Amino acid sequence: MDKNNKVSIPVIRRLPRYLRYVNMLESEGVKKVSSRELAELLGTTASQVRQDFNLLGGLGRQGIGYPIDELKRELEQRIYAETPLDCILIGAGSLGSAIARYLKNVAKGYNLIGIFDNSEEKVGAKLEEYTCLNIDTLSEFCINHNPVVAVLCVPTSAAEQMVPELIKCGIKNFWNFSHYNFAKLNDDVKVENVHIRESLEALSYRIKHEIN
Amino acid sequence: MDKNNKVSIPVIRRLPRYLRYVNMLESEGVKKVSSRELAELLGTTASQVRQDFNLLGGLGRQGIGYPIDELKRELEQRIYAETPLDCILIGAGSLGSAIARYLKNVAKGYNLIGIFDNSEEKVGAKLEEYTCLNIDTLSEFCINHNPVVAVLCVPTSAAEQMVPELIKCGIKNFWNFSHYNFAKLNDDVKVENVHIRESLEALSYRIKHEIN
Repeated sequence: MDKNNKVSIPVIRRLPRYLRYVNMLESEGVKKVSSRELAELLGTTASQVRQDFNLLGGLGRQGIGYPIDELKRELEQRIYAETPLDCILIGAGSLGSAIARYLKNVAKGYNLIGIFDNSEEKVGAKLEEYTCLNIDTLSEFCINHNPVVAVLCVPTSAAEQMVPELIKCGIKNFWNFSHYNFAKLNDDVKVENVHIRESLEALSYRIKHEIN
Repeated sequence: MDKNNKVSIPVIRRLPRYLRYVNMLESEGVKKVSSRELAELLGTTASQVRQDFNLLGGLGRQGIGYPIDELKRELEQRIYAETPLDCILIGAGSLGSAIARYLKNVAKGYNLIGIFDNSEEKVGAKLEEYTCLNIDTLSEFCINHNPVVAVLCVPTSAAEQMVPELIKCGIKNFWNFSHYNFAKLNDDVKVENVHIRESLEALSYRIKHEIN
């Protein structure tokens, strides 16, 4: 049983990383992994790994190593919703198109149900099996389809306009590729940011100043 | 003067975030910002902000608040190389295409000089002003053009094959969108990972378990 009230955001952020390494080990034919080995892969300590797994309610078994297949199943079960989460994508530019394809063809646990844009050239165009919808039809769409997650692939200024509207439409979960700052919003809203630019800038700094 | 030997990776990762908020404040017409205000935006403490700026060699002036324009200039000067870094992109799929457009049209401090793929349908195709090159011509290209950074927009298995080859071609800096794990490589290599899937999984977990 999950003891969810004790699971903090840093622990939650480590879960997908555990899953990533578990998948990697599985593809290498590995059958078992110790907390020490996982810790090494993640750059953390074995006691941290054991503590995380403990918090999740006895994930695997300490002492004898964790069977890879069991660990994978347990992690997936904790991470993914039982039925895929309906999501809409706002912004059908080049990043938005790539993310739409990713959601459709690669991502687990999500179900893309609509793509919106405000530009004349995008609205009505086909992207995968979707026809890009006019952003003006958003609230009607939300009443009919109840999307759970909005994916923001728009510039910051557009996100600033869109977010309050999306929240008004009942959406409380955001996957945010814009630089819009959700910090000021109420606690009811969940946001995961992907700040592409920031990793590029960190790399630039490290190259410039020769920091490994 | 930078005291670079003391600048750790966590500090480096905060720099682009400082810059992001400084840009945001500038666009709102703000002229000055205190370490307390910056700390609030970043979700850290004022003393952390002051310590970071100190490490960077007296960024801004403590006590009277930091002038936004000066802070922006100083941050940009530390983050971006003096001449844009030549980079190549490996993988011209939908994510690769989006990232190529981003590098060409949005990103600062980088200069995309070549796009490579191994699929017949991609090689020779136009993407922005680039003609997608055959991956077989990579080493020759690198001898002639000396790219500094490789951007990996390929599946993990392809990255596994490509990375040693890229390193052999003299490339030591990677912007990695694949799930390839660089952990085992030598210290000479700089990697910034963008793990899109992990943020999506963290969001899924938070929605499933109602954790804000």
